[in-house]
Amino acid sequence: MSALDDLIAFQRQTEALSSVAERLGWDQETVMPRGATEQRAEEMGAMEEVLHERRTDPRIGEWLDAAEPVTPSDQRAIDLIARDYARTNRIPARLASELARLTSLAQGIWAEARAKDAPADFLPTLDQVLMLKREEAAALADGGDLYDALLEDYEPGMTGARLASLFDQMRPRLVALRDDVLGAERQPQALAGHFPQETQMRLARSCASAFGYDWSRGRMDLAVHPFSSGRWQDSRITTRVVETDPFNCLYSTIHEVGHSSYEQGIDPDYAFTPLGRGVSMGVHESQSRIYENQMGRGRAFTGWLFDRMSHAFDGLNIADADAFHATVNRVTPGFIRTEADEVQYNLHVMLRFDLERDLISGRLDTEDLVEAWNSRFLRDFGVAVDRPANGVLQDVHWAVGLFGYFPTYALGNVYAGCLNQAMRQDVPDLDAGLSQGDASQGTEWLRENVQRHGGLLPPAQLIEEAARQPISPEPLLSYLEDKFQGIYGL
Amino acid sequence: MSALDDLIAFQRQTEALSSVAERLGWDQETVMPRGATEQRAEEMGAMEEVLHERRTDPRIGEWLDAAEPVTPSDQRAIDLIARDYARTNRIPARLASELARLTSLAQGIWAEARAKDAPADFLPTLDQVLMLKREEAAALADGGDLYDALLEDYEPGMTGARLASLFDQMRPRLVALRDDVLGAERQPQALAGHFPQETQMRLARSCASAFGYDWSRGRMDLAVHPFSSGRWQDSRITTRVVETDPFNCLYSTIHEVGHSSYEQGIDPDYAFTPLGRGVSMGVHESQSRIYENQMGRGRAFTGWLFDRMSHAFDGLNIADADAFHATVNRVTPGFIRTEADEVQYNLHVMLRFDLERDLISGRLDTEDLVEAWNSRFLRDFGVAVDRPANGVLQDVHWAVGLFGYFPTYALGNVYAGCLNQAMRQDVPDLDAGLSQGDASQGTEWLRENVQRHGGLLPPAQLIEEAARQPISPEPLLSYLEDKFQGIYGL
Repeated sequence: MSALDDLIAFQRQTEALSSVAERLGWDQETVMPRGATEQRAEEMGAMEEVLHERRTDPRIGEWLDAAEPVTPSDQRAIDLIARDYARTNRIPARLASELARLTSLAQGIWAEARAKDAPADFLPTLDQVLMLKREEAAALADGGDLYDALLEDYEPGMTGARLASLFDQMRPRLVALRDDVLGAERQPQALAGHFPQETQMRLARSCASAFGYDWSRGRMDLAVHPFSSGRWQDSRITTRVVETDPFNCLYSTIHEVGHSSYEQGIDPDYAFTPLGRGVSMGVHESQSRIYENQMGRGRAFTGWLFDRMSHAFDGLNIADADAFHATVNRVTPGFIRTEADEVQYNLHVMLRFDLERDLISGRLDTEDLVEAWNSRFLRDFGVAVDRPANGVLQDVHWAVGLFGYFPTYALGNVYAGCLNQAMRQDVPDLDAGLSQGDASQGTEWLRENVQRHGGLLPPAQLIEEAARQPISPEPLLSYLEDKFQGIYGL
Repeated sequence: MSALDDLIAFQRQTEALSSVAERLGWDQETVMPRGATEQRAEEMGAMEEVLHERRTDPRIGEWLDAAEPVTPSDQRAIDLIARDYARTNRIPARLASELARLTSLAQGIWAEARAKDAPADFLPTLDQVLMLKREEAAALADGGDLYDALLEDYEPGMTGARLASLFDQMRPRLVALRDDVLGAERQPQALAGHFPQETQMRLARSCASAFGYDWSRGRMDLAVHPFSSGRWQDSRITTRVVETDPFNCLYSTIHEVGHSSYEQGIDPDYAFTPLGRGVSMGVHESQSRIYENQMGRGRAFTGWLFDRMSHAFDGLNIADADAFHATVNRVTPGFIRTEADEVQYNLHVMLRFDLERDLISGRLDTEDLVEAWNSRFLRDFGVAVDRPANGVLQDVHWAVGLFGYFPTYALGNVYAGCLNQAMRQDVPDLDAGLSQGDASQGTEWLRENVQRHGGLLPPAQLIEEAARQPISPEPLLSYLEDKFQGIYGL
């Protein structure tokens, strides 16, 4: 066995163990008995310790030094292992364990503060989290930019400056579109009624199948917050049901199918190698979003869905498929990111991006955070935040130390915009299929151009090669303007 | 930290990891996508390797040498860890891995041979398994009896000679009872009809609740072969549904509730220590059997069940609760152990026990096994085996190397007989509760006298203290004779 073989064999077992830990997380969110929390915490702790020991095993360094890559994918695997190994070794064990302890605690404190609408109960804890995250960032940055060092965990190669420039191009056009749409005379009808769980779940399964979800390598369950979990032969999705709002279930499902299909679509030769996962959060989100929005919320697919839903729910009180398309894409004012439509979603993200960058750099103190959030929200959304639970306390991310994660949501949308442009050029019949509930031409294009590569190419290169253009917000913005100007008769 | 603290902390993590591996096994048999087999094999392999490394960690030996127990439960924990450590170290790594490889292979070969009714396709493989198991037994026995060494894995402290003596007392009375019952003039009615899955599952949940299953620390799913899985706060059960035979589902459920309640009933202070699991296969089976048979198939509980089933299925075409009790306990000739009634079940086990003891000792060759099985079956059951799938090929145990496991099924019944006698003395109102679908007085007695102790006491001591008598087949035999002579009017 060569050093490379040893390294890859060792890594393979680490991947298998980390897949087990992920499956345990799925179990916890879907089927675990409610009384098993202590036991599960101990099981997860034991798995994390095993994984940590493997990730810091000094043999990795020796193998990396001696490894002789033959193919480009060998080289890429070595690079990815080296990156993770360097990262792990830069973080002192004391800091890692303090961060784990504090963020676990902070999550509970945040949840209580949100329930009581009391930011003052949470901000001192956030301050402690921030201090540790800055320390972590400094250890990782090695003299470079702190925020960029954190971003590297979610979107390797991306920088805060680059994101700021992308987002600065987007903001004015999105704000303008938002204003136009909300001020338009023609306003889509809302969907009203009671939509039983069982029927929603049946439709959700049809939607997942329409988007090519491979049920032999996955399954769907209910969860409080929908997520996808797992890779290779076992990539599962979850959804939720709100009986007054079937779109919640159906579009959560399609979104998670996008994530899960990415994992299912990776070249099986990469399974349990460093190339065997989606390459970044942004690229992952591009897949969930292009399934959910550019395909799932387009006129073609909603036409099919209108028929299906009308039949399943015995009428919807909506005039026709065009009106239904408008209903699906209805834009309303709102405070909550996770409930936002395509027009406003990125504005929510950008607000968080600017604030968290300032928090990490120290330009913003946590004691000024509420004020900063509220004034920014008023500026971008034209509405004053009514209470902290609808403002700064709405997301868990910061409590658990996820600084640098938010912008990948908007970046995923930018990627999806670029990919959609190329896909539409290459697949002129896509809408003909979607109008019959068949997304396969689109999903095949995405599999061929994005998904199968797994971690082989760095995110930006992957997207630029697939989209045949430099990454730019222009395709997303034109798509949004065309779509919503059409729906709202602007 | 003392050496004892270090040892217990290390062991605690091992227990947590082994609990994860068990949960993975549950996942595989209940919810795993069918296309995930390769991935799961690799995940299980990685977990097994981690566990093996921990179990052979030389620090265990050092801690054991230095540990200073304070309490009797410290001492017992040390003894149990030392036993497992010694066992693991006696088996050469080469042998362990050969056994793992061969038995995994043999399982497939056995399944194919059974499907084709072709013992000759399987016996050469069985021969190889036997050779390795003899080698393993020799390594473990250290000059002692080979079969006893294997038995130690499932029923510590028990010997083949002791079992043979127990079983020799039982066989003639069971054969006689079987003959009387099958020759009786009064024969119970069979249950006929179609019993929809959903209704069976609803009833199964009622039965599980009647026997005190703690749903906050467990759940029930469907599986091809019912099993229970897990411990402490997360002990799950499975059942199966045959729509022509609701007893299959209901009594599988009660049986697994017995196993699972044992784990749920262990003193939580023992969780993730060597004392935190059921102490032996025989004691485990005593719990499943006393729930299923002595309580579940008694006149009192079947009276309640008759009402419930009559209502749920809109009539059963059975005259009254007495006739229903007879139907539940109906004895019919049959080849298959897993389908056997209380009278014949132990005869099936004893046959296997004698044959496997002879196989291990070398008194019986695999080439003579079919003939030995068939002639013994004819002798004990009065019927000739019609085909190998109904004879020597029916069970997977030998293919996967489980020699010494079978007798614990019958031993569990013997234990259950002893426990039942003491429980009935201590809980005179038990039947009054059972006739109302409330087993709590019985389950509380078992929790107090058996379950809560976990691994604290050796199996024989545990049962003898709980039953206040030496272990003997007499209580079981009298119980069976009384019950079946009553039902069959003998």
